[in-house]
Amino acid sequence: MQRYFLKNKEGNNLIFFEQDLHHIKNVMRFRENDQIEAIWNEIIYLCKIDSISPFSLKVIKEEKTVKKNNVKLSVAVSLVQEQKFDLILQKLTELGIDNIIPIKTERSIIKIDEKKISKKYQRWQTICKEASEQSHRTNIPKINPIIKLKDLNKIDCELKLICSLDSKSKPLDEYLTKDIKEILFVIGPEGGLTDQEEKCLIDYGFKQTTLGKQILRVETAAIYVASIINYVYGG
Amino acid sequence: MQRYFLKNKEGNNLIFFEQDLHHIKNVMRFRENDQIEAIWNEIIYLCKIDSISPFSLKVIKEEKTVKKNNVKLSVAVSLVQEQKFDLILQKLTELGIDNIIPIKTERSIIKIDEKKISKKYQRWQTICKEASEQSHRTNIPKINPIIKLKDLNKIDCELKLICSLDSKSKPLDEYLTKDIKEILFVIGPEGGLTDQEEKCLIDYGFKQTTLGKQILRVETAAIYVASIINYVYGG
Repeated sequence: MQRYFLKNKEGNNLIFFEQDLHHIKNVMRFRENDQIEAIWNEIIYLCKIDSISPFSLKVIKEEKTVKKNNVKLSVAVSLVQEQKFDLILQKLTELGIDNIIPIKTERSIIKIDEKKISKKYQRWQTICKEASEQSHRTNIPKINPIIKLKDLNKIDCELKLICSLDSKSKPLDEYLTKDIKEILFVIGPEGGLTDQEEKCLIDYGFKQTTLGKQILRVETAAIYVASIINYVYGG
Repeated sequence: MQRYFLKNKEGNNLIFFEQDLHHIKNVMRFRENDQIEAIWNEIIYLCKIDSISPFSLKVIKEEKTVKKNNVKLSVAVSLVQEQKFDLILQKLTELGIDNIIPIKTERSIIKIDEKKISKKYQRWQTICKEASEQSHRTNIPKINPIIKLKDLNKIDCELKLICSLDSKSKPLDEYLTKDIKEILFVIGPEGGLTDQEEKCLIDYGFKQTTLGKQILRVETAAIYVASIINYVYGG
C-alpha cells in the first residue's frame, strides 16, 4: 500500500504535501476508490479516494502502530560528499534510526555554503520522508543542525560511542547490553578523527569501539551501526 | 598504506595489473623509496619502490594475516539496477563476504545482455578488487555466474536462509548459533520473491527469516545481512 506522511491534519481534514498530490495523481495515477495510507503523529489512516479532482478522500480505518527499536539511536556522522551523505540518510532511515547529527570534523573535506544550507536541509528532509514512507515507518528521523565535533558535549546520552581504529577500542557487543535505552555513535570522516578529536570525545565521556576487522568507509560504518542496533534492539 | 592485489607472482617477481601501475605512478605519484603493500595468495608483501621507470621494487617484509569472519558467507541476491548492484558489491566486499551469487528471479526487472556479460563481470571484479584493497582485506570475494533462482538447489550449504516478509519467518538471531560455519542468504528483488519461489526454496531446505520490522530495499537488506554476520561471527 502506498503511504504518505501528511503535511498537516486539521480536524478530520488530511492535508497532503503538494509533491505527494502530484505523485498520487500523475505518478501512481490513482483513481476513485483506490486506497492509500496517510500518516500523522504516528497514526496510520487507511483512506479511500473519493475524487481525484478536486482531491478528496475518506478515512476508512485508523490504526496506531508502533514499529520502533527498543533503543533510541542517534548517529553523529562527519559530513561527506553529497551522494554518500544522501545514501547515509536513506539507509539509516530505512533501518529505524531516530536522530542524525551531521558534524564538522578536522578531516571533513566538505564545506557547506551557508547560503545554500536551508535548501540542503529541505533536500535531506525529503530523502528521509521518502525513505520512511517506502520502509513503512510511522515517523521520520530528525536531522539535527550541523555542529562542530566539540559541540557534541552538549548532547546528553546514556551510552556514547566513537567508532575507532585505536587498538584500545573494545568490540561493540561489549557495550550493547539489553538495559541500554539510548545510544549515540560518532563516525568520523575518511581518514578518521584526529587523535586530538578522539581525546576530546573521551573527555566528554565517549568510549571507543571497533566495527570489526575491515576498514569501513564512512557510509558503510554508518549503515553497519544502524544494522547492528536494529538487530540487537529491534525485537 | 596503499595496497594492491597482484595480477601474478612468478618466483620473486611481483606482477601488477596495468591499471595499478598507472595508479601508482600517475594517481598516487609514488616516488623512489616510497612503500606500498602488494597482496598475493592472502600474503601481504611490504615493498619499497626502487625505481619508477622502469618500475621495480624490493620486498622488505612478508606477512600472512588472516582477517576473516569465522563463518563462510554467501549472498545470492536478485539482479537490480546497475548502480544498486555496484553498491551491493562494494559494501559486501568491505564487510568481508566470501561469495556473491547474482540471481534471476521472476520479479527481477533487469535483463542482462548476453553479449555484454563478460564486460559486466570485469567491471564487477574491479569493484570488488578495489573495495578489498580499500578495506584492507587479503582476499577478494568470488562473484559467481548469474543463475536462475531454481538452480540454487545445486549449492550446498550448512545454513540456507531466505530473507522473507512471510509471517511465519523467524528472527535472524534464532538461526545464528555459534557452531555454524557456512551460511547462504537469498535476497529477492523489489516486491519480493513470489510465493511459488519461496515455496521452491523451502523445498530445497531454505528457512525463512525476517530482517526486522522495517521493509528494506534490496541493497539495504544485502548490507544488513553482511553487517550482522560480521558482528556475530567477526570476532
